[in-house]
Amino acid sequence: MKKIRAAIVGYGNIGKFVLEALSAAPDFEVAGIVRRSPEKTVETAHLEIVDNIAKLKNVDVAILCAPTRSIEQYAKEILSMGINTVDSFDIHGGIVELRRELDKVAKANNAVSIISAGWDPGSDSVVRALLEACAPKGITYTNFGPGMSMGHTVAVKAIEGVKKALSMTIPLGTGVHRRMVYIEIEDGYDFQTVAAAIKADDYFVHDETHVFQVPCVDDLKDMGHGVKLIRKGVSGSTQNQIFEFNMTINNPALTAQVLVSVARASTLQQAGAYTMIEIPLIDMLYGERDELIKRLV
Amino acid sequence: MKKIRAAIVGYGNIGKFVLEALSAAPDFEVAGIVRRSPEKTVETAHLEIVDNIAKLKNVDVAILCAPTRSIEQYAKEILSMGINTVDSFDIHGGIVELRRELDKVAKANNAVSIISAGWDPGSDSVVRALLEACAPKGITYTNFGPGMSMGHTVAVKAIEGVKKALSMTIPLGTGVHRRMVYIEIEDGYDFQTVAAAIKADDYFVHDETHVFQVPCVDDLKDMGHGVKLIRKGVSGSTQNQIFEFNMTINNPALTAQVLVSVARASTLQQAGAYTMIEIPLIDMLYGERDELIKRLV
Repeated sequence: MKKIRAAIVGYGNIGKFVLEALSAAPDFEVAGIVRRSPEKTVETAHLEIVDNIAKLKNVDVAILCAPTRSIEQYAKEILSMGINTVDSFDIHGGIVELRRELDKVAKANNAVSIISAGWDPGSDSVVRALLEACAPKGITYTNFGPGMSMGHTVAVKAIEGVKKALSMTIPLGTGVHRRMVYIEIEDGYDFQTVAAAIKADDYFVHDETHVFQVPCVDDLKDMGHGVKLIRKGVSGSTQNQIFEFNMTINNPALTAQVLVSVARASTLQQAGAYTMIEIPLIDMLYGERDELIKRLV
Repeated sequence: MKKIRAAIVGYGNIGKFVLEALSAAPDFEVAGIVRRSPEKTVETAHLEIVDNIAKLKNVDVAILCAPTRSIEQYAKEILSMGINTVDSFDIHGGIVELRRELDKVAKANNAVSIISAGWDPGSDSVVRALLEACAPKGITYTNFGPGMSMGHTVAVKAIEGVKKALSMTIPLGTGVHRRMVYIEIEDGYDFQTVAAAIKADDYFVHDETHVFQVPCVDDLKDMGHGVKLIRKGVSGSTQNQIFEFNMTINNPALTAQVLVSVARASTLQQAGAYTMIEIPLIDMLYGERDELIKRLV
């Protein structure tokens, strides 16, 4: 069997989990890692580490593990080489535009790009689409957590007097969330003043927010997260159809696994850019098609 | 906008709900109903009712609402006319074979067939496939109910001395189910003897089964059903990723809605036969693609 050769672009938190997911997949081999600094670790000792993907041979697909705001540039460069890309771009308001931009480049270079493939956007998007096919009228609520919000944590860190921070998202139902913020403060700052500044910040002012001073923020961190997605809707003219999707997961591990699954799917699509709801799910899975249908359908 | 013209083939319980789902869909029109007896009801007074689909004009897709065992024959006849078919064929062990058979006929006639599109097989299959993409290693348990099992109810009715019957499926977790059987018995039969015969039947002998004699089985019937689908698995090398999909639904209404959603998708596929996990979910939804991506991804 010819294996799919994948390059990992960016080797931070997600990149490390992508390496694990690639190692566990029987149909992939790692073409190499692309990162600025070429330093190696025990896990990457046997791998090629380069500063430009052009230095790697026969790459079928690049798994982009770089920050969201740099995805478009990386994807365009790599698609232009005729190499597929997958990413977990997560700015919901920018997905349509990114897809349109990458679609042009992908088609011009006979490559495939699958974008926004993590858990939200990503696997949650697939569930939301399925539930609309089951009940076209109704409301879907996506409740996040309990888990760490990267965006909110960064927002807290930007506030004057905050030394270290962690913002946890707690789901209260119907898409309403509580923010639990844990901070260490810089010497010479008053906790009450800093807490008031956090609560007044744009990221927090509309949500119920509680701020706590703790001796060590690092001691509180875990990468677990969760979702409780609910739809109550109408099938035909029958009201009150109720659907619920819950998960409790390691956040970067799930994102990395979804990226690897769509990297597989990328090798089976026509040239162009896609989101996960535009891809047949079977293409994301390893195995013989009849066997997959027999087992899963 | 040119509407999709759908024929309803078979007008029993599912057929009636399909008519409701078609009426609620902005992009469909009913080409007519195909059934043996041409009798009309208030709901169908305005529709063409024929005994052969060939008598209807410009049918794009036939929604097969006939019993599972007759699906293959109907689908082959209708695909041979170049008309798409969708069905909710539900014998899990026969799906691969049906798909293979219909694929040949569909391709030969430039038509599309989407099979086993109900809730299980159907929407549950989509969830099972998604969860394998999220956590390739692990175990998925599909727990059914509480709700009426058609197959088990028919099995009870076949036992000597049973006048009317209802078999309810109760989920006990890890795919284990309890059977709650409610019966009226024929004059001259002994309840204990009949109950023992039910418990000894192949359909019940492996499950925890309770049999009750009631004055009126009809009074107990509702069309509600449910699923609790659970996967605990591994993303990459991270254990203990937990996913859960629950629904509480009107059974025929959901089946009918899924059939209409895949009927829409059938107009967008290449010729051939497919299960739901082989179809992009976005194709099942009404609306402009960029709008759907913006709202759902």
